Amino acid sequence: MKKIVLKSPLDMHLHLRDNEMLEVVAPLSAKSFAGAIIMPNLVPPITSIKDLIEYKERITSAVGSEKFEPLMTLFFKSDYNYNFLKDAKRYIKAIKLYPSGITTNSEDGVSSMDMEDLGETFEAMSELEIPLCVHGESDGFVMDREAEFCLIYEKFASKFPKLKIIMEHITTKKSVELLKKYENLYATITLHHLYITLDDVAGGMLNPHLFCKPIAKRPEDKEALLEVALSGNEKVMFGSDSAPHPQYQKECCGCAGVFTAPIALQALVQLFEKYNSLENLEKFISINAQKIYAFKPIEKDIVLVKRNFLVPSSYGDVVPMFANEELEWDIEY
Amino acid sequence: MKKIVLKSPLDMHLHLRDNEMLEVVAPLSAKSFAGAIIMPNLVPPITSIKDLIEYKERITSAVGSEKFEPLMTLFFKSDYNYNFLKDAKRYIKAIKLYPSGITTNSEDGVSSMDMEDLGETFEAMSELEIPLCVHGESDGFVMDREAEFCLIYEKFASKFPKLKIIMEHITTKKSVELLKKYENLYATITLHHLYITLDDVAGGMLNPHLFCKPIAKRPEDKEALLEVALSGNEKVMFGSDSAPHPQYQKECCGCAGVFTAPIALQALVQLFEKYNSLENLEKFISINAQKIYAFKPIEKDIVLVKRNFLVPSSYGDVVPMFANEELEWDIEY
Repeated sequence: MKKIVLKSPLDMHLHLRDNEMLEVVAPLSAKSFAGAIIMPNLVPPITSIKDLIEYKERITSAVGSEKFEPLMTLFFKSDYNYNFLKDAKRYIKAIKLYPSGITTNSEDGVSSMDMEDLGETFEAMSELEIPLCVHGESDGFVMDREAEFCLIYEKFASKFPKLKIIMEHITTKKSVELLKKYENLYATITLHHLYITLDDVAGGMLNPHLFCKPIAKRPEDKEALLEVALSGNEKVMFGSDSAPHPQYQKECCGCAGVFTAPIALQALVQLFEKYNSLENLEKFISINAQKIYAFKPIEKDIVLVKRNFLVPSSYGDVVPMFANEELEWDIEY
Repeated sequence: MKKIVLKSPLDMHLHLRDNEMLEVVAPLSAKSFAGAIIMPNLVPPITSIKDLIEYKERITSAVGSEKFEPLMTLFFKSDYNYNFLKDAKRYIKAIKLYPSGITTNSEDGVSSMDMEDLGETFEAMSELEIPLCVHGESDGFVMDREAEFCLIYEKFASKFPKLKIIMEHITTKKSVELLKKYENLYATITLHHLYITLDDVAGGMLNPHLFCKPIAKRPEDKEALLEVALSGNEKVMFGSDSAPHPQYQKECCGCAGVFTAPIALQALVQLFEKYNSLENLEKFISINAQKIYAFKPIEKDIVLVKRNFLVPSSYGDVVPMFANEELEWDIEY
C-alpha cells in the first residue's frame, strides 16, 4: 500500500474554542499535527499572559497523552507596549489582529487601521520579532472585503518592513499577487479554500457547513491559491482555520467556519497527489512555517496510507468538511 | 392615517406549489393580488392542457371565495408545435422556459439553447403572440450565471423580434442595460432583489431564508434594479418569485427561494415611499404588466394604510421575508 510519512505537520491557524468544544476538537488536531497556532478569539479574547497560560493548560489537558504543541497567540490590542511584549514573547508565537466585528468573536478587535493607533505596538513587535497575524477583511461587500484590505496590508508592510505579517486564510488572486510584492508578507491558506468556491456554498443547494469567513471566492481565485500552495512557494503555509460550531448552530443560525482539523492531512495529500505535487507537500505543511516563524517544532511523524477513508458524519456534534464522503488517503495511527 | 389604493395589483411571477403547500400559500397571494402568473415547475411539470386545467382548478379551490385570477403558464418543451399552442393559447398567458437543472424542479428543462431545437416553437409563439418567460441563468459560476445568459437573451431577442421575451427575476445591472437594448425584451423584478445583496445572504451570519436563485448580487446591481423599478420604466413589472419551502427544508437542506407573497405589497409601498416614487408604484405593480401581456386583470382594489405591520414568524411552516420585523405599511382587509 502506498505510504507517505509527513514530518511534524503543522496547522498554522487553528480554532480550538474552550470547555466542551475544546475537549472534542483538541484531541483531533493532536492526532494529525505536531503543533498548531492557536487563535485567541475566545469570549473574552486572550489578552493577558495569565489567561494565555491558563488556556494553554486547558488545551494540554484536553489533548491528553498525544505529543502536540499549542503555539499560543495573543489577541491584538493597540495598548500592548514594548515592556509587555518583551515579557509576553516567552509565551507566544504571534499576535493576531482582528478588525472589529469582522468574524466570530471579533467584537473586541481594532476599529481603526490608523498608524497613530497601531504604530507603537507594531514597532515593538518588529524589534522583538513577534509576527503579526491578520484577519484581513474590510467591512465592505462580502466578495470585495479581502481585496479592499490589501491596501491596509500594503500600508502595514511598507511602513514596518521588519515586521513579519501573516495574511491569514487568503482567498483571492489579488492576495497571492500582493504576497509576492513585499518581502515581509506571508500567508496561510486553508484546506477548504483550495477545494471550494462560492459555487460550493451557494451555487446549488445552500451549504452552511462550507460557509466561512472569508467566504470562498471565484474559480480564478481558487486557481491562484492552488498554484502558490502546490508549487511549494516559501511564503505560504498551511493553516486550516478549522473552526468548529455545533451542527444546530451552523444550520439554524448560519455561524461562519468550516471544521477540517481531523480530515485536513488526508485531503491535502489527495490534492497534492492529484496535481502531481507531492514533493512540495512537506514545504506547505511544515517546512515553510518553520522558516517563517523561525522555530523548530517537536518531532512527530504522521503516516498516511492510500486507502479509502470514509469521513464521519460528525465528530461530537460538529460536522466536518467531506462528511459522509470518501477520501483516498487515511492516517495510520 | 395615510392611505394608498392599489388598483388590481399583479404578481407576474409566482410559485404556488401543490397539495398542502398550495392550501397555505394560495389564499395569501389572493389577499394581496388581483392575479398572478403561476409558475409551472411542479413535479412533474405542467406540460399538458389537461394538467394545467386541473392545476388551475386546485388553485381556485385553495383560494376560496377571494377574487383572484391565476394566470396560467406551461413548462416549455421544444416539441410544442403550432397546432398544440393554438389550442393552448385559450388557457395560458405565457410559457416558461427553464434551462435544465438550474433551479427548483427544473430537471425537465431544456438542455440546449440551440435554435435548431427551439426555433420552431419560438416561431409559433411569435405568430400566436404567446410571451416567453425565461429563467435566464447559465451553468457557470453562481455570480456570473445571469450575465453569461445575456448572450442567449440577445440571440433570442434578435432572431425572434416579434416574440415577447420576459427576462424573469433579473438581478444584475447588465440585465437592466440589455433590457433597454431590444424592443422585445421585458423583465420581472422581485421584491427581495430590490432590498438585498449577497451581503444579506452571506455577509454576516448565513441566512438561508434569503437564499434564492438567481442569488442576490452586488450593491451596484441592486442600485440598477431600484433605478429601473422606481422610475416606472414600462419594460419592467413586479414578479415576486415568491417560492415557499417548509422551514426545516430551508434550514437543513438549503432550498432556494424567498417567500414574500403576503408581505410584498406592504414592503413595496414602503420602498417606493422611501425613494419618493409612489407615483410610479402602480406602473410597476400593475399597469406595465397589463401592457406587456396585453390583458385586463379583474378589478380589485387593495388598500394600504400607514401603520406598523409586524410580519409573522411564519405562515404555516413557511418563514417569510422580514419575519418578526416591522414594516411601515399594512393592508386593510
